Amino acid sequence: MNFNLKEAVEILERTPQTLEVFCAGLSEGWLAGHEGAGTWNVTEVIEHLIEAEKSNWMPRLESILKEGEGKPFPPFDRFAHIHDKPQGSIGQKLHLFKSERMRNLDRLKELVDPSRHLELAGLHPEFGVVKLRELLSTWVVHDFTHMAQIVRVMAERYRADVGPWSDYLGILKRK
Amino acid sequence: MNFNLKEAVEILERTPQTLEVFCAGLSEGWLAGHEGAGTWNVTEVIEHLIEAEKSNWMPRLESILKEGEGKPFPPFDRFAHIHDKPQGSIGQKLHLFKSERMRNLDRLKELVDPSRHLELAGLHPEFGVVKLRELLSTWVVHDFTHMAQIVRVMAERYRADVGPWSDYLGILKRK
Repeated sequence: MNFNLKEAVEILERTPQTLEVFCAGLSEGWLAGHEGAGTWNVTEVIEHLIEAEKSNWMPRLESILKEGEGKPFPPFDRFAHIHDKPQGSIGQKLHLFKSERMRNLDRLKELVDPSRHLELAGLHPEFGVVKLRELLSTWVVHDFTHMAQIVRVMAERYRADVGPWSDYLGILKRK
Repeated sequence: MNFNLKEAVEILERTPQTLEVFCAGLSEGWLAGHEGAGTWNVTEVIEHLIEAEKSNWMPRLESILKEGEGKPFPPFDRFAHIHDKPQGSIGQKLHLFKSERMRNLDRLKELVDPSRHLELAGLHPEFGVVKLRELLSTWVVHDFTHMAQIVRVMAERYRADVGPWSDYLGILKRK
C-alpha cells in the first residue's frame, strides 16, 4: 500500500489550480474539441469534476463515517452535467471546481483522523464493501484520469497535423 | 488541418507553469515513482522536456528556416538527460524548463511569420521531408504526451490502493 493521507492531499489540493493555469482563457477550439460522438470535451470534463465534488466524494466519505457497511452509498449520476448543462465561462467553472475542492479538503481534515479512520468501510452499490482509504485513493486517481483525458482530447485535434511524428507520440495511440 | 500558430502558442506558454503548479514541492514518493525498469519518473520527464527545449525544437526550426530540405536536422539524443544526470531540486528544474521555454517562444515569435513560413520544409533524418507547421504541431502534442505520462506514472503508485475502483479508472488501463 502506498496511500497516505498527506501525500493524497498534496495532489487533491494542486489539481484545481493546475487545471486553471492550463485551461483558463484557452481558445474555443481547444475547449470544444472531443474524441467523437458521446465523448467529452474539456469543458465537460471540468463540469464532471465539479459534479463529483458536490455529489460523489464527500457524501460517500460521510456515509462511511456515519453508516458504515450497513447502508449503500447515496447514488451518484456520472452524467448529471450532461443532462443538466451548467452555465458560465470556463474560467467560472474552473473557479467553482477550485472552491468546491478547497471546501471539501477543509471538511476532510475536520472529519478524518488517519490514525483511526482509514480502515473504516462503506457499502458501494456495485462493488460491495470498500474502505475509506480506497475511496480517498480513488479520488486522487480520478483526478489523474481526467487530467490525462484533457490532454488526450486536446491532442486529438492535432492528430493529422503532426504528420509523420505521430508514431513517436504515445498520446495519439490511446483512446 | 487544425493547426494555427496562435493556438499552438497558447499551449506552449501554459505547459511550464502548469507543471510547476502541479509538481513543485511534491513528496519524493510522487516524484520518484515509475512504471518499471527503463521507464521515467516525474523528475526525468521534466529533465527530458528541458533537453528538448535546448536541443530539439529550436535547432530544427532554425534548420528549416536556414537550410530547408537540403541538409538533415542536427541530431537530438532523447536520452541525454539519462546519460548526463542534471543536478538541482525539482523546483529548480521546473524553473529552468519555464525559462528555456519562454526564451524559445520569444525567439519563435521573432523568427516565424505564420503567413509565410508554415509550409517551409526541412529534412528529418528518419522521416524525410517535414513541414514547419508539422514540427510546431509536434511540439504541442509532445507537451500533451509528457503531461499525460506524468499523471499516468503517478497513478501507477495507487494501482493497488484504489481497490475495486480500478475498473472505472481509465488511466490504470494504459501503459
